[in-house]
Amino acid sequence: MLVFVGLGLNGLEDITLSGIKWMRRAEKVYLDIYTSVIPNFSIEILEKNIVERKVIKVSRRDIEENYEEILNEAKNKIVVLLVPGDPFVATTHMQLRLTAIGRGIETRVVHAASIQSVVCGETGLFSYKFGRCVTVTFPYGESICETPYDVVKENMKQGLHTLLLLDMDAENMRFMRVAEAIDILRKIEEKRKENVIKKDTLCVGCARIGSDIQIVKADYIDEISKVDFGAPPYSLIIVGRLHFMEAEALVKLANAPLNVMEEVKCPIKK
Amino acid sequence: MLVFVGLGLNGLEDITLSGIKWMRRAEKVYLDIYTSVIPNFSIEILEKNIVERKVIKVSRRDIEENYEEILNEAKNKIVVLLVPGDPFVATTHMQLRLTAIGRGIETRVVHAASIQSVVCGETGLFSYKFGRCVTVTFPYGESICETPYDVVKENMKQGLHTLLLLDMDAENMRFMRVAEAIDILRKIEEKRKENVIKKDTLCVGCARIGSDIQIVKADYIDEISKVDFGAPPYSLIIVGRLHFMEAEALVKLANAPLNVMEEVKCPIKK
Repeated sequence: MLVFVGLGLNGLEDITLSGIKWMRRAEKVYLDIYTSVIPNFSIEILEKNIVERKVIKVSRRDIEENYEEILNEAKNKIVVLLVPGDPFVATTHMQLRLTAIGRGIETRVVHAASIQSVVCGETGLFSYKFGRCVTVTFPYGESICETPYDVVKENMKQGLHTLLLLDMDAENMRFMRVAEAIDILRKIEEKRKENVIKKDTLCVGCARIGSDIQIVKADYIDEISKVDFGAPPYSLIIVGRLHFMEAEALVKLANAPLNVMEEVKCPIKK
Repeated sequence: MLVFVGLGLNGLEDITLSGIKWMRRAEKVYLDIYTSVIPNFSIEILEKNIVERKVIKVSRRDIEENYEEILNEAKNKIVVLLVPGDPFVATTHMQLRLTAIGRGIETRVVHAASIQSVVCGETGLFSYKFGRCVTVTFPYGESICETPYDVVKENMKQGLHTLLLLDMDAENMRFMRVAEAIDILRKIEEKRKENVIKKDTLCVGCARIGSDIQIVKADYIDEISKVDFGAPPYSLIIVGRLHFMEAEALVKLANAPLNVMEEVKCPIKK
């Protein structure tokens, strides 16, 4: 059996009772060290106090190219793969899961906190007002992927917020910073000139969101690009039309400038 | 301090280490019994084995009208409010949180698994291919809210999936079933005739998703409306354009008809 266990976003504290149960039942426990990093996460404490056995780190190559070993073990044993956040929000492991099922290996998932829902609680933005989510990828030489710009544009048209996940190569400790992502969006705006990214675009910059040491800061885009967010991982929200309760929340939870509330002060306006 | 603790979706098994820590530190522990129900959840076992004290059930009226008592306690004590899923994905508690902050009461959130991310792992549909999420509400007399139809239409235009949360009144054990939601969508289609809900609309019907006793079934809409999904809570996904790996996942994880895979068999077609 192959069990994907989500670790959440906050050190070892987001681990669930079910997660602990499966880690202890397993004969092999692997840890994905490439899809993200979890703040305050300690593999030593995990091994000693929770799993009570050795945890084997796996890289992207281990999973994507050398998955045969893992699948062979999972045929007759309980094998756990630990994944930051909620497994399968990043799509990386779905191919492994489908291959396992195709070989008659039972699979299951232990869910945990994910950035997708955590952003609502930490910013006060309503979940049903988020449009499609998108990743801002590292430029490839001179080439910049414009999909995030198109997604923001479509969402904005409908007054919706956009959660931008920022690219990372966690194995090599390379993380796109909030200011880099804004710079990419501005470069696309400069080229396309469709008035999607403007001086008064309201953003929420996030670092280590969902952890005890998060920074969540709302402000206009130029201000956000100047903030020092500290250690990774990062994300960025481009804010759509605000409900007045969302505006109040951005001020109280994310230290947004007060005029954000004045702009939506009429409770009827949507 | 007022601590909102997410309970996840799977009995007591989705409770996190952080959740347990705060429940045990608290002088008062409240349980929201109205925003959803968690399958296999036992308040008795929660009290006896986890919280080690009495858990007080709170209704919508307790929270929305008589919150003064809770806020007064939270001024000097640690008060925990247990919430199904990840707190604040349903927006019900944000007003309470903002009122608390306005009175100088510290608030924090312990996150947990939410339907918003769980649907990805349990269906194989990619998170970045979901558009805006929407709730199908109970008809009010003869009047049906058409927002879900508009949201599906907008998402469909962009090839995106739509997660429909189905209305519930958990206090009175009234839950909108999958077939009722489909019936509502069909009635709006009959009136609006914009060809959004068709005979070949692919859906995923979900009951108790994220729990050990979930049902997740993909099929065309007429077939899904005939499925007996058992106990609540329910949700429904209207599927947009499928990536070939999503199609494979729907067949392997949600028992979709095989022709779903044939329709997207070319890996280049998106």
